[in-house]
Amino acid sequence: MIDTIYWEGEVVKMLDQTKLPTEVCYVDCKDYKTVARGIKDLWVRGAPAIGISAAMGIALGASAVQTDDVNAFIAEIDKISDEIGSTRPTAVNLFWAIKRMKKLLDENRQKSVPELKKMLRSESETILREDIEINKKMGSYGAMFINSGDTVLTHCNAGSLATGGYGTALGVIRAAKERGLDVKVIADETRPVLQGARLTAWELMEDNIPVTLITDNMAGYFMKKGMINLCIVGADRIAFNGDTANKIGTYSVAVLARAHNIPFYVAAPVSTIDFSLGHGDLIPIEERDPSEVSNVCGGIQIAPKGVNIYNPAFDVTPAEYIAAIITEKGAYRPRDLHKLATSSAEELESLRIK
Amino acid sequence: MIDTIYWEGEVVKMLDQTKLPTEVCYVDCKDYKTVARGIKDLWVRGAPAIGISAAMGIALGASAVQTDDVNAFIAEIDKISDEIGSTRPTAVNLFWAIKRMKKLLDENRQKSVPELKKMLRSESETILREDIEINKKMGSYGAMFINSGDTVLTHCNAGSLATGGYGTALGVIRAAKERGLDVKVIADETRPVLQGARLTAWELMEDNIPVTLITDNMAGYFMKKGMINLCIVGADRIAFNGDTANKIGTYSVAVLARAHNIPFYVAAPVSTIDFSLGHGDLIPIEERDPSEVSNVCGGIQIAPKGVNIYNPAFDVTPAEYIAAIITEKGAYRPRDLHKLATSSAEELESLRIK
Repeated sequence: MIDTIYWEGEVVKMLDQTKLPTEVCYVDCKDYKTVARGIKDLWVRGAPAIGISAAMGIALGASAVQTDDVNAFIAEIDKISDEIGSTRPTAVNLFWAIKRMKKLLDENRQKSVPELKKMLRSESETILREDIEINKKMGSYGAMFINSGDTVLTHCNAGSLATGGYGTALGVIRAAKERGLDVKVIADETRPVLQGARLTAWELMEDNIPVTLITDNMAGYFMKKGMINLCIVGADRIAFNGDTANKIGTYSVAVLARAHNIPFYVAAPVSTIDFSLGHGDLIPIEERDPSEVSNVCGGIQIAPKGVNIYNPAFDVTPAEYIAAIITEKGAYRPRDLHKLATSSAEELESLRIK
Repeated sequence: MIDTIYWEGEVVKMLDQTKLPTEVCYVDCKDYKTVARGIKDLWVRGAPAIGISAAMGIALGASAVQTDDVNAFIAEIDKISDEIGSTRPTAVNLFWAIKRMKKLLDENRQKSVPELKKMLRSESETILREDIEINKKMGSYGAMFINSGDTVLTHCNAGSLATGGYGTALGVIRAAKERGLDVKVIADETRPVLQGARLTAWELMEDNIPVTLITDNMAGYFMKKGMINLCIVGADRIAFNGDTANKIGTYSVAVLARAHNIPFYVAAPVSTIDFSLGHGDLIPIEERDPSEVSNVCGGIQIAPKGVNIYNPAFDVTPAEYIAAIITEKGAYRPRDLHKLATSSAEELESLRIK
């Protein structure tokens, strides 16, 4: 299994995913600004991995703060958090992780600055460890939707590389594999940044899971041919009502799946759910640099100079297109998802899709 | 207006579209094998332009045949035609043009070889001239589907570059522009070969028609936002029942358009209709080299070495998704299209969408 981001001594090692699949290269992040740049420039991407990175970035930033005054220390952490929080507006795990780190500080104001620094570091490690556990649980709940012989279409990368390890959508596929099921993957290449071609194809090949790469516009063709049994994708943010923001193109996959009677699943940890947003239209959609479209992988120019370009990084798939949302607390119909915030374990058990 | 392919003295000048938009480079085709290679390697593409190229290739090949015996000459032309006909299996205009050139020979067997050579050359020029006229007629019939203020989504390139000039789908947009309508275009980039990004964006910018480039997987997003009023695409082959083969991804656009109540039109000359094929499933779909997907524009590697890839070049959009097929003989509902082969002018007039 690939390590996306981890501590090595006082350094955060971050796999520079923009160089995959041709180079496997880890960046040594020695300060929080490098971590922030890594999030912004997509060295690391995927909602859970962004959350882990943010936590590690805060811990790294904290370690360099030169004060023994707790209030001054916390004020510095606030500044660092704001800077890290400004990198990617759509991924809610970023804010979830920042909030968790700040809450820890808030609850431990009586401690000394050196103690707080240690606690932040330790919390970031806990978030990483928990993320992998969460993915495995999600996999065990999601695997039941896969039958042996199925081909799963996935979009973007919701794998080891998008998380601390194991993956959300690809975690479900890994779990099915571990149960001995025969499962194949068709991966959308996922323009403009090509996470499907560069990352999903690569990590599945590393794990010997059969994968075939297609361009995004081929999905409908293979659905019509009956070559896709189900779709599983990750999520960048899920609203209260189950509307799901994910990589641009996810919505088109969901509409095509519906037109071909193919079930469409989302796999995401509870930390991806933004219970404060009533519906998907309220999720801010990041518009990224047009050069991602006009110059493939920062290199070859494929469009005329000066052409107008739209480059929304995400779209929102309405809840009605989603057969189930698979979390570490079970799989639920999108309309029931919000009950994760309020319901008793017993009630949740009755809502869980089995 | 861009010249895609034309005679200059004894040479066929072919714009090498694979080098666009960064270079405008014409290849001097001095023999038919170069023309065949140009068709195969996509220097020229688009069903009508392929037909014109095939006709010019045959005339060019004919000019080099060293015999005065008409039967031997025709046998050589058959060989040349077979070679040219083997380049692209899906585009019916290729076979239409070959058939037309052969018919000409067949009807003039009493002529001398030098006379036949001249006639073939002249016929190829007529096909080019007619193609431009046909496109303009198609434009005049299609423009009525556009309202001022509309934004048209198009896929691949069905413009000047896909024809002798003016274009089919883009011809309709040009005609609307010439009528003074305010019309904007959103162009799908059209992976893997990126005809939308490289060709459609380029030729529309050359003509000062407002165009915005998106990746293929963004189409659904902009439809949902209400930013697309209609879709117009070209066709590589249309079956008797109106099912339409066109560049891969067209089918997905049609399904998305239906889901958003957006009308979807096909613009194509009558020569694109294959009256011999009952329905679209009988249209052969060309599977092209996986390297088109794994290496963008023959260059940068975007996928892991050795990954399995599917690369169908076309898909078939069932007639039921098509609001109208716009030809040089008027616009018709797909179910009425086959009547072009058999009906009286009067009957056609009654079927024509006005």
